[in-house]
Amino acid sequence: MSDLPDLQTDEQVDEPEREAHLALEQDVREAVWEQDTRWLSRTLTRLHPADAADLLEQLSTDDFAEAVKLLHGQLPTDIIIELRDEYREEAVDVLPDEAVAAVLEELDSDDVTTILEDLEDDRRERILDELAPEDRASLEQGFAYAEDTAGRLMQREYFAAPEFWTVGHAIDHARENADDLPDEFYEVYVIDPTHRLKGQVPLATLLRTPRDVKLADIMEEVQSNISVDMDQEEAAYQFQKYSLASAPVTDDADRLLGMLTVDDVVDVIQEENTEDLLALSGVNSADGSDTVLDSVKARAPWLAVNLVTAFIASGIISLFEGTIDQIVQLAILMPVVAALGGNAGSQGLAVAVRAIAEREMDGDASRRAIVRETLTGLANGVIFAIGVAAIAGFWFQSVGLALTIGIAMFATFVWAGFSGVIVPLALRRMGADPAVASSVFVLTLTDVMAFFSFLGLATLILL
Amino acid sequence: MSDLPDLQTDEQVDEPEREAHLALEQDVREAVWEQDTRWLSRTLTRLHPADAADLLEQLSTDDFAEAVKLLHGQLPTDIIIELRDEYREEAVDVLPDEAVAAVLEELDSDDVTTILEDLEDDRRERILDELAPEDRASLEQGFAYAEDTAGRLMQREYFAAPEFWTVGHAIDHARENADDLPDEFYEVYVIDPTHRLKGQVPLATLLRTPRDVKLADIMEEVQSNISVDMDQEEAAYQFQKYSLASAPVTDDADRLLGMLTVDDVVDVIQEENTEDLLALSGVNSADGSDTVLDSVKARAPWLAVNLVTAFIASGIISLFEGTIDQIVQLAILMPVVAALGGNAGSQGLAVAVRAIAEREMDGDASRRAIVRETLTGLANGVIFAIGVAAIAGFWFQSVGLALTIGIAMFATFVWAGFSGVIVPLALRRMGADPAVASSVFVLTLTDVMAFFSFLGLATLILL
Repeated sequence: MSDLPDLQTDEQVDEPEREAHLALEQDVREAVWEQDTRWLSRTLTRLHPADAADLLEQLSTDDFAEAVKLLHGQLPTDIIIELRDEYREEAVDVLPDEAVAAVLEELDSDDVTTILEDLEDDRRERILDELAPEDRASLEQGFAYAEDTAGRLMQREYFAAPEFWTVGHAIDHARENADDLPDEFYEVYVIDPTHRLKGQVPLATLLRTPRDVKLADIMEEVQSNISVDMDQEEAAYQFQKYSLASAPVTDDADRLLGMLTVDDVVDVIQEENTEDLLALSGVNSADGSDTVLDSVKARAPWLAVNLVTAFIASGIISLFEGTIDQIVQLAILMPVVAALGGNAGSQGLAVAVRAIAEREMDGDASRRAIVRETLTGLANGVIFAIGVAAIAGFWFQSVGLALTIGIAMFATFVWAGFSGVIVPLALRRMGADPAVASSVFVLTLTDVMAFFSFLGLATLILL
Repeated sequence: MSDLPDLQTDEQVDEPEREAHLALEQDVREAVWEQDTRWLSRTLTRLHPADAADLLEQLSTDDFAEAVKLLHGQLPTDIIIELRDEYREEAVDVLPDEAVAAVLEELDSDDVTTILEDLEDDRRERILDELAPEDRASLEQGFAYAEDTAGRLMQREYFAAPEFWTVGHAIDHARENADDLPDEFYEVYVIDPTHRLKGQVPLATLLRTPRDVKLADIMEEVQSNISVDMDQEEAAYQFQKYSLASAPVTDDADRLLGMLTVDDVVDVIQEENTEDLLALSGVNSADGSDTVLDSVKARAPWLAVNLVTAFIASGIISLFEGTIDQIVQLAILMPVVAALGGNAGSQGLAVAVRAIAEREMDGDASRRAIVRETLTGLANGVIFAIGVAAIAGFWFQSVGLALTIGIAMFATFVWAGFSGVIVPLALRRMGADPAVASSVFVLTLTDVMAFFSFLGLATLILL
């Protein structure tokens, strides 16, 4: 245990529990080193799959791969599916083809699709070839829908019943066909003879209704409207809006094809949030197992863009080389205007990106936001223009310099407020993700304004 | 319709549907202006509460308040609870005390708590006084738990059954007591005579099990472990980890007190994500109905901190006033080093904050991250040092200047990589939110390094 850092991880976990957990982590690590497959297998199956997956994720990548190899066929499928993306991919990489095929046959259809996505094209072909043709066809079905659609995310196992069934009929059917039903579901979908979706009966409603009542009489209208080719982000939005635990997925003719459950949707929400947060800071993607090369690849492109924009700002400054040469204080104060202006722009940008993501920027709201952000820039501009002017004037004992930096600061703040909201709205309008590239644009715009106004005014006022 | 902007809101919505929606929005607006209460009330009740709430949120704040006043007692409770925080607060503000009291009596306990939270202390007292003492006691119960705990978020309505009951017994009980059960639930909680939680039976399991089987024989262990005083963020983490749709909430003695459902948890996840995104950009809070004053209040404090740090950077530059006076090109290139270094630091910071939020930064992982980020800084440092040196050297035709900026750039990148990850980890260790204030620290650290190394080296090499 001595090689574990004592960084505090979570105030909620009490000390003895935490120590027991660290000891278990260390035992797992040692079991891998000592190739104690039996102990490892028994320990992992004793835990909830999510906890077992957590434990394995504490291993270094090499130890993890070693553990998967050791366990081989004995690594429970439940644990594989609970692993974080990068570890699951690693596990699938390390397992032999037959083991992966065996895993696929055990899983619900949405999890099958997840695993198939992890595989290289030719390995996927090879593994699917190992399966009986009818299994193969069924496994590949989810894979036929485009990435990031509801079709990819849904499972094709659900409980559907015709309208004329009674509650008793539905319950009897469930008892007789227990094995064909998905492990978890929260609603019975009511369909007509052509498999069109007519309504849904929440299990809680089914439970409290007498046996002889018809499903048609207790079914609710399905509020969500999720089609197989709908973007998963839009589907997640409907889950949030209607507070759903699960929802039916249909084709264009409203025929029932599958079911989305909230656990998958929560993952989508997390993903989208993470993407926004990273994109705003100029990172394309990131996860816990990234190598240095992954990190460089995810960040260098935006740094390269920033290289260009930084030299544009330099170009602006160089226009005023003569002015700076005469008043060196300008060089000292220049970064203050740029830093504060950039900060104001980033603030407005974060607020706008959040509002767009939460659909608070439709219609009138976007116009109101533009006005509000510009006025906020104006208000903060007044406050910080006075502050900066006072400090600079006092420092360099110059009213002219104070006036110059004050006006420049004010102009930059108003401009920052406006660009912080207009840039993401413009990107959205062009069909681009408003979070991606916004920062670079906004910071360039505020830098240009900061340097141009400060040095330009200095040339006019101070020379 | 002509006064509505044509900003594209969602590619998924087709044009005719979108136009119909805009027309409906306009009709609602006009109904408010014309005080057509009857049409308004009928239109809103016809829609799903979430859709009706959406529609009302399209109104300006004044029109919205007007609409609530018009509808008065006829604004359905379902719609109130679906409104976004700021609109719900507004609605509760506008409604008379008796109307709010009537709303409270209709709601599930978790929604009651939400509304009570919206009220000013003395108004809450006044409204609670209007209720019968026993109602009041029950309504206030949820409010007794601290803010942001599972106790505040949970509802006290759930379905619990003793271990010796059979499936048939549970179903019969649900049918006979249909009205006492919550509208939505996904599990039956199995308790002992002292109300201690023994296990749970998902409704899907209940449904497919024969009537004479005992609940004790089909119940599952409850994987989550959520106590009333647990932080809601920790509860949300358990929902994600164990893919839950609902979970029981217990006291310290493991007695069942309430139930959390995933729709409330999804809101918590969104909130936490939003907080991180805003905090990273130096904004304390934001929502769609913020006034300019709200925005200034949420942002000025961080701008004030930035004002101080910007002048610290200026102070560093002023140390080298003499050098800049002799070589004005330094003033032109200075911001390039600061901008790129700051960008590299922000990238690392965003990655670290995300990893901490997703609990990928425990134990060994944080040490690995520090190494990876520093090496990433090193790698990007080499690439961009060469790039910047080449451009600067070519621009100003000076090998010395190229060398100076190249080395400074490299040092700043390595430093940025290290600070980007160490600052949030240090904040977390001190028990602070790693997203809040991180940006200011990281940018100050990179600015200081950028200016100090570039101007310092220039003094050594070029003078």
